[in-house]
Amino acid sequence: MSFSVKILGSSGAAPAYDRHHSSQWLEIGKKRFLVDCGEGTQMQLQRYLCRTGKLKRIFISHLHGDHYFGLIGLISSMHLFRQIDELHIYGPKGLDDIIKIQLKYSDTFLNFKLIFHETHPDGLELLYEDSELSVYSFPLQHRVPCTGFLFREKPRPRKIIKERIQPDFSLLNLAELKQGKDILDESGKIKYRNEDYTKDPMPPRSYAYCSDTKYSPEIVEYIHGVDLLYHEATFTNEFEDRALETFHSTAAQAALTAKMAGAKKLIIGHFSARNKELDPLLQEARLVFPDTELAVEGETFELPFSTVDF
Amino acid sequence: MSFSVKILGSSGAAPAYDRHHSSQWLEIGKKRFLVDCGEGTQMQLQRYLCRTGKLKRIFISHLHGDHYFGLIGLISSMHLFRQIDELHIYGPKGLDDIIKIQLKYSDTFLNFKLIFHETHPDGLELLYEDSELSVYSFPLQHRVPCTGFLFREKPRPRKIIKERIQPDFSLLNLAELKQGKDILDESGKIKYRNEDYTKDPMPPRSYAYCSDTKYSPEIVEYIHGVDLLYHEATFTNEFEDRALETFHSTAAQAALTAKMAGAKKLIIGHFSARNKELDPLLQEARLVFPDTELAVEGETFELPFSTVDF
Repeated sequence: MSFSVKILGSSGAAPAYDRHHSSQWLEIGKKRFLVDCGEGTQMQLQRYLCRTGKLKRIFISHLHGDHYFGLIGLISSMHLFRQIDELHIYGPKGLDDIIKIQLKYSDTFLNFKLIFHETHPDGLELLYEDSELSVYSFPLQHRVPCTGFLFREKPRPRKIIKERIQPDFSLLNLAELKQGKDILDESGKIKYRNEDYTKDPMPPRSYAYCSDTKYSPEIVEYIHGVDLLYHEATFTNEFEDRALETFHSTAAQAALTAKMAGAKKLIIGHFSARNKELDPLLQEARLVFPDTELAVEGETFELPFSTVDF
Repeated sequence: MSFSVKILGSSGAAPAYDRHHSSQWLEIGKKRFLVDCGEGTQMQLQRYLCRTGKLKRIFISHLHGDHYFGLIGLISSMHLFRQIDELHIYGPKGLDDIIKIQLKYSDTFLNFKLIFHETHPDGLELLYEDSELSVYSFPLQHRVPCTGFLFREKPRPRKIIKERIQPDFSLLNLAELKQGKDILDESGKIKYRNEDYTKDPMPPRSYAYCSDTKYSPEIVEYIHGVDLLYHEATFTNEFEDRALETFHSTAAQAALTAKMAGAKKLIIGHFSARNKELDPLLQEARLVFPDTELAVEGETFELPFSTVDF
């Protein structure tokens, strides 16, 4: 199953150097998700050929404009492009009022149903799940209510070793083997031992998105062991005081969070307009957490399986 | 005095082909004005080096998103960039509510005072004037309340012919000559005839902006004789029915309006996503009104003086 994160925007609040405001496009299997939606996101989606026809769920971390001012435009264009499926929006209290007042004054009655789900920045909260995936919000420490998002695959069933399938296996037996059970005979004794007929499935992968937050070790418990972590890195070390004052992080702090969380890879973004060149941020992060990459617009990060032994 | 119109966006509601939503940057003497502010306008302003430090007045034609979704982002960035002068916004009822609710949820207290002026689409209305310029709104015919805007220079004083200045002219005499008066002697008889000592000033120039409107000859009275007219031209002739249905215009209808108004030059824009190529729109307009140009993003139209005899 594919699991990828495409960067649509990498800029902090004051846009500069043709960098765009925060937004990411996730492809997980056949599903598409948008995380944050800064101004101009709909143009970025067009530029990078992200087809919104499959987009059913949008997650907004907080109500600072650089994270959501593009939402009303995207919704309007999905309407113009005759989207008909319902669209779920997950975000803080107030987002529904903001969208609805704009639809009201433009006299727009959407072709599709818009369903708002209010997020609560006071602990881990399950926002969405299906047979393959769970999406959670978790609290970040910013100047307004703000959550991160965690996309976690569900554990897969055990894989049956095809060449060892026995002629007398029933469908029920196959289902039991996938669940990790042994197959018993009529007297209740083990007839076929699970470990002889199955192998471990691919482990579930996970991605965490930490949009705007001051350095806070409290985050670590929510994102422990993720395969990929996006964490804002607005400032270089030189502006650590400014980071604290504005409830943002330095690149080194983002890296420290990744390290403490045991993340496998880190992407840093939300770059301040102070940083024309991004290499200093990358170097400062890599000193703490070597497997760090910059959020470059248009770039896609694929989540590999941790073990290649399948 | 300079008088120019820079095109920041030329797209109709559904953005396509990397064309941006409606917005125009006006430079009139030392003043700067923004007319409409579609999503991404702040990025376009950066791209075309339009410095918002001097921007004090923004005019919004109507509350369809492609004409104003970029306003809250621009206001937010002007705040971040430490703008301190008051900013006047002219637009339809509701715009202040939309902006204020977004400032509320982002907990933003602007560095500058934001002053809303409600427009009324029921006749010519003076929105702003200073010693050199008047700005009016006038009604357009669209699906929601919508106004066009007319920027008209005030008549200049007559120009004194320097080489004919007489030694006995007082300052009062000079002022009277500029006002077109003759200079009288003590008995009230004409001593110096105005026409011998002054020449005609440069005529006042005018620009009219017709954002979204169905074809409506009623507009003509408001824009009569303008030097430059921008008029939306969403569709080609082939889609004239669609234009009527959606309260938009064809290129030929825009041209007909320009012709009836006796405009000197026409710019057409607000192109539908149906039109990848814009030449057909231009050709259809030029058949009716030869001096038509396309609204090309980044292009600046200077308003020349009608008579070159100065």
